[in-house]
Amino acid sequence: MELEKYLGEVITQVNETIDKYIQGDVPELYEASRYLLKAGGKRLRPLMVVLSSELLGGSRDRAILAGAAIEVLHNFTLIHDDIMDQDTTRRGLPTVHVKWGIPTAILAGDLLHAKAFELITESIKGLPIDLAYRALNCFSRSIVIVSEGQAMDMEFERRWDVTENLYLEMIRKKTAQLFACSAHLGGLLANGTNEEVNSLYDFGEKIGIAFQIMDDILGITADEKELGKPLYSDIREGKKTILLIKALERANEHQRKTIMNGMGSSEVSTLSSVASLLSELSLDYSQQLVRKYYENALRSLSKVRSRNQLALDGLRAIADLIITRRK
Amino acid sequence: MELEKYLGEVITQVNETIDKYIQGDVPELYEASRYLLKAGGKRLRPLMVVLSSELLGGSRDRAILAGAAIEVLHNFTLIHDDIMDQDTTRRGLPTVHVKWGIPTAILAGDLLHAKAFELITESIKGLPIDLAYRALNCFSRSIVIVSEGQAMDMEFERRWDVTENLYLEMIRKKTAQLFACSAHLGGLLANGTNEEVNSLYDFGEKIGIAFQIMDDILGITADEKELGKPLYSDIREGKKTILLIKALERANEHQRKTIMNGMGSSEVSTLSSVASLLSELSLDYSQQLVRKYYENALRSLSKVRSRNQLALDGLRAIADLIITRRK
Repeated sequence: MELEKYLGEVITQVNETIDKYIQGDVPELYEASRYLLKAGGKRLRPLMVVLSSELLGGSRDRAILAGAAIEVLHNFTLIHDDIMDQDTTRRGLPTVHVKWGIPTAILAGDLLHAKAFELITESIKGLPIDLAYRALNCFSRSIVIVSEGQAMDMEFERRWDVTENLYLEMIRKKTAQLFACSAHLGGLLANGTNEEVNSLYDFGEKIGIAFQIMDDILGITADEKELGKPLYSDIREGKKTILLIKALERANEHQRKTIMNGMGSSEVSTLSSVASLLSELSLDYSQQLVRKYYENALRSLSKVRSRNQLALDGLRAIADLIITRRK
Repeated sequence: MELEKYLGEVITQVNETIDKYIQGDVPELYEASRYLLKAGGKRLRPLMVVLSSELLGGSRDRAILAGAAIEVLHNFTLIHDDIMDQDTTRRGLPTVHVKWGIPTAILAGDLLHAKAFELITESIKGLPIDLAYRALNCFSRSIVIVSEGQAMDMEFERRWDVTENLYLEMIRKKTAQLFACSAHLGGLLANGTNEEVNSLYDFGEKIGIAFQIMDDILGITADEKELGKPLYSDIREGKKTILLIKALERANEHQRKTIMNGMGSSEVSTLSSVASLLSELSLDYSQQLVRKYYENALRSLSKVRSRNQLALDGLRAIADLIITRRK
């Protein structure tokens, strides 16, 4: 109960900060920029920033600004990814480019990207320059890495030779880097030791990998309404998820043909039969992989000496949520 | 001769820094990201940064990093603007989205945007935190403002009530802000007084406004081959340039109809007759406006006490180039 209240309070402060910063006098652009942020989202990444900071006894205000920066940045990537992947629904609503057209959606993403830097700049105001530099560097390097991951993800759509290792490298860049940077930033802003901020980085990275594998799993097993976006879109888009990679490894010739011919289809019945095969052949394996990264993440977290039991409980609760979530 | 050598040296150092930073192991993405930067460009903005800094006796290395950041940022906006405006040629070559498709072009722009922040972060390493904060804030605020300007520019395409003042506000945001930030950044990195950095800001802003009005003029008067992009594209896209706004004010009923019916056309002969009318009705006025902003810019520059004659000569040469250029 106390934990719930604590997390709720942090989320409220992050949301208030986002509201305050995403304002301006070009109405349509700001409306399009705020839309996805207002549509929901679990705010996992800003929670990682703030709780990692408070775990080491850092101050609240600075971490809230950095958390808001990470969330705004994440939403920018979602808006652009939806254009690139031609996704039409997210968080149960039409995507930004469906509602406002591609030009405004590109610009709304660019605006959020810039606003994220405005927020991170606020968060380092008055810090020792060395810490400020490290925080900014972690932030801007992360976006470079996330962009590289998205490029790999798109390139893999055209390939059939993607291995599990390549897949892991791709999701480490596309998804896990931002979780890693979140925990790392929290540690830096609280002036943690090198060992502490590195352990937090590892915690974030592993939890981020678990998050993405769960995302792949939910893409074929979730309740579509609960998920807020179409099921099977990974199969329709030819995404090389861990489920697909492992299923192809384990499939007999007939199954292999069914899968390969079904990838990229727009027929729901075809997509659904590919999904059944993936479930049969690789769901177990994928769930075990999630478990493995989850346990490694908690091991990294346990290396950090906690100064705040509530923050520690909160980080563990986030890790639990990530592997038990249904959306 | 000495001046030419000085400017050439700065440009070479900026280009080397850009080359060094826009590297990574996702080949297609980096190729698409480097393409426009390699295709040419006058490097006016990084020159503004470096020369403004040296005018006040600032150090070279820091200013080169900041100059490279501004140029990379500018190229990111060009890549995304070309998608939004559906432009197919720039610097005499097919645009990035024509060559690699829209998804890769969006991502290449995003990567450059992030790399620009990586570069600006390098440039403030070791500075007093207060100066670092001001430099970063100027940089990230500028992109917010440039995005707002681009949104206004697109919105104006659908409107006929755009006044000269609204137009000036739009180009101040879309174009002049980045010039203003360039000169301002140079002043900040050299630890100039508030008065000095503000005068440099004004110099950059006014020269940026002159630059954009010249751009509008060249869009209907230049040699297409020299310009490197199609003539009349502003008319085809319904852009509310100063030439259009002033021509509509001065046109008789018949001329007004010809202009309004011709805007948005894809017929070269129609576009060309609209262009003739704009030349006849508002070229003089637009050229006078360029002159006015040019003179105001030089007045702002003259308020700064120069510590480096070559830098001062260079800034004046850039101002001259901006109003005499043919591309």
